[in-house]
Amino acid sequence: MHVADAPHLRVLRLLRDEGPVSRAELGDRLELTRPRLLAEVERLVAAGLIAEAGMAASRGGRRSTLVELDPRLRFAAVDLGASSIDIEVTNGRLEPVATYRETADIRSGPRTILQRVNELLHKARTDGAYERLDAVGIGVPGPVSFRDGVPVSPPIMPGWDRYPVRELLAREHGCPAVVDNDVNIMAIGERHGGVAHSVDDFLFVKIGTGIGCGIHLGGTVYRGVDGCAGDIGHIQVDANGPVCSCGNTGCLEALFSGFALGRDAIAAARSGESPALAERLAAALSLAESQSDDDQSEPVVTITARDVAEGAAEGDVTCIRLIREGGRRVGGVLATLVSFSNPSMIVIGGGLALLGHVLLAEIRSVVYRRSLPLATGNLPVVLSELGSRAGVTGAAVLASDTAFEQAS
Amino acid sequence: MHVADAPHLRVLRLLRDEGPVSRAELGDRLELTRPRLLAEVERLVAAGLIAEAGMAASRGGRRSTLVELDPRLRFAAVDLGASSIDIEVTNGRLEPVATYRETADIRSGPRTILQRVNELLHKARTDGAYERLDAVGIGVPGPVSFRDGVPVSPPIMPGWDRYPVRELLAREHGCPAVVDNDVNIMAIGERHGGVAHSVDDFLFVKIGTGIGCGIHLGGTVYRGVDGCAGDIGHIQVDANGPVCSCGNTGCLEALFSGFALGRDAIAAARSGESPALAERLAAALSLAESQSDDDQSEPVVTITARDVAEGAAEGDVTCIRLIREGGRRVGGVLATLVSFSNPSMIVIGGGLALLGHVLLAEIRSVVYRRSLPLATGNLPVVLSELGSRAGVTGAAVLASDTAFEQAS
Repeated sequence: MHVADAPHLRVLRLLRDEGPVSRAELGDRLELTRPRLLAEVERLVAAGLIAEAGMAASRGGRRSTLVELDPRLRFAAVDLGASSIDIEVTNGRLEPVATYRETADIRSGPRTILQRVNELLHKARTDGAYERLDAVGIGVPGPVSFRDGVPVSPPIMPGWDRYPVRELLAREHGCPAVVDNDVNIMAIGERHGGVAHSVDDFLFVKIGTGIGCGIHLGGTVYRGVDGCAGDIGHIQVDANGPVCSCGNTGCLEALFSGFALGRDAIAAARSGESPALAERLAAALSLAESQSDDDQSEPVVTITARDVAEGAAEGDVTCIRLIREGGRRVGGVLATLVSFSNPSMIVIGGGLALLGHVLLAEIRSVVYRRSLPLATGNLPVVLSELGSRAGVTGAAVLASDTAFEQAS
Repeated sequence: MHVADAPHLRVLRLLRDEGPVSRAELGDRLELTRPRLLAEVERLVAAGLIAEAGMAASRGGRRSTLVELDPRLRFAAVDLGASSIDIEVTNGRLEPVATYRETADIRSGPRTILQRVNELLHKARTDGAYERLDAVGIGVPGPVSFRDGVPVSPPIMPGWDRYPVRELLAREHGCPAVVDNDVNIMAIGERHGGVAHSVDDFLFVKIGTGIGCGIHLGGTVYRGVDGCAGDIGHIQVDANGPVCSCGNTGCLEALFSGFALGRDAIAAARSGESPALAERLAAALSLAESQSDDDQSEPVVTITARDVAEGAAEGDVTCIRLIREGGRRVGGVLATLVSFSNPSMIVIGGGLALLGHVLLAEIRSVVYRRSLPLATGNLPVVLSELGSRAGVTGAAVLASDTAFEQAS
């Protein structure tokens, strides 16, 4: 049974999501009696969470005072990828006041990575982004025990298993911290400020180096009993498919993902099957050779999803086929998940979202054909609006929720 | 965000699930102050929901009065199957005081079926099972809008689409009514009084004439946006498989279900591949012929799951193979759903649960091999304990919850 959240949470979230509001309107919107509202506002002003912001325009009677989140509120939002650190420091309304992005290998382990996160956050303070942080939210590329604030058996994060991420961040920055899976924070971000705004039941499918799914049910993220709900990359879609990094054969992400698409694109370039990709491979090789004249190491040459997208846009049939085959694989799994979970929207995000309409059209076609008609009668399948900012946006939402909850 | 339920609901559910309790213990268990508890008890006695039941054994101080649900409380629980009506009238503790079961074809339409349900319930009153009903709960074999209390586009229930089942039952019996999908009520029943007792996150897979899944997440049934969550029977598992009743090819239930197993068993009997099934088919034929001497109609001869189960128990390799192949199909779909939803238990129910260990072993083997290790590290896959009573038990739970909620 769901019961309404506590009044202070509702006040704080409304001010976060909509900006300054008059006391009178706040009372109307939250259906709080005047004495109850005044008591809440007084308490939250005393706690340093909200502030008065001048007078509202008259509604006919006495003019009402505007209230807003305290302008000094600051949240740190961190999105750790397999090979990147993304940080935003935001104000109370979750607008970025400082942004940092750099490459980093998650496999360097928690000490190295978290030390770098802390350095960047301290730099943000030096840069004037904040005086003190009210909460830190962080997403990591693996399963997380949300309750304990630790990664749990994360396959691509050696050394991180049950590492006390939340505890160390909270101690370092003297504020509450919250840890979640990277796909979950993307889903939360997309619901806060993206295409899934206010949608209660949707799936956010991240197609990047790997594949994962954020599950938003009944207005909240569903994380599963062990924190690994939505880990759909290792669903077997072809018993005779290629061997996956997990050791099984024919997993979804062994057939379609940033990694798999790069592999297939290079093969298509080398075999001459795709002129567009062959041209791009040759360009990448000559660039790599010119750069490695003084370097003894083997040049790393890759073709990426962007090359395939460009090839498809030029009409290269192999590029179009690679995207369609991938969309068919993803669509087949999503058809199953739609029949199972009957969501009201599917959002496609992650690096491979740049494959755009060709990918989307194929996913839609399979989902609409194979899922129950009742479940697909009104089911938009759409691209993420926030793109690479979905993760930090969601981490900021989580951080603010955590700060607000602890203010009770 | 989940907040604790209202005190009166907690009092009523505790008395329903555990029987008479002293006022003192009730206050301790529900963490209610003495004045708050007394006020609740007084109100619920006045509402005719609870009653005093003598004195409790002394706990050292003053003896405390026992309270219990009013002994006159009665709930009607109805489980409509494709070809059956199951009814229990229960007391407040959900113990059956009257039971009715008969065959009925759901395709006869809502008027005929609901009229028969009403006749049976009126008969129960004549039989002395109740004076008045406090609520009716009913499960139907198709998608339901839980909010509206109506079936929605149910494929095997012609004439039932948006038929006002809740409204008509409520009017006929002068009490609240609640309508849900048949698999959802089985899941609720199994959680109340079966193997999933107190388990918050589990999947209940019904394998009967068709296949469906009840999804229990975070302590509550997840029904999906259109009420068709868990409708997994039409997930495509083999693009080259047989044509399904829904018109697609290779759906899970076209490959394994009561219907599919009967079809495959008859084929194996006719081809002589299975001596055990051939013997049973011959016996069924001779029985049908002896019965139809005076009858012009074609005798209907079937082999059922029970015949296959018996054949397997005798060591008939074809029977064992049929069960294993079915388990492999179901296991493949469940492996996907486990990776997606990370539950803490899977319960197998429905008519084909009588295939027992052979079926279970195959499902387990596929799920454990193909799902994420983190998700299967501690994942029991077990048979329903309540069997054919799961549905009415869940319908009684829903009825009582509805009555209790409306008592606020």
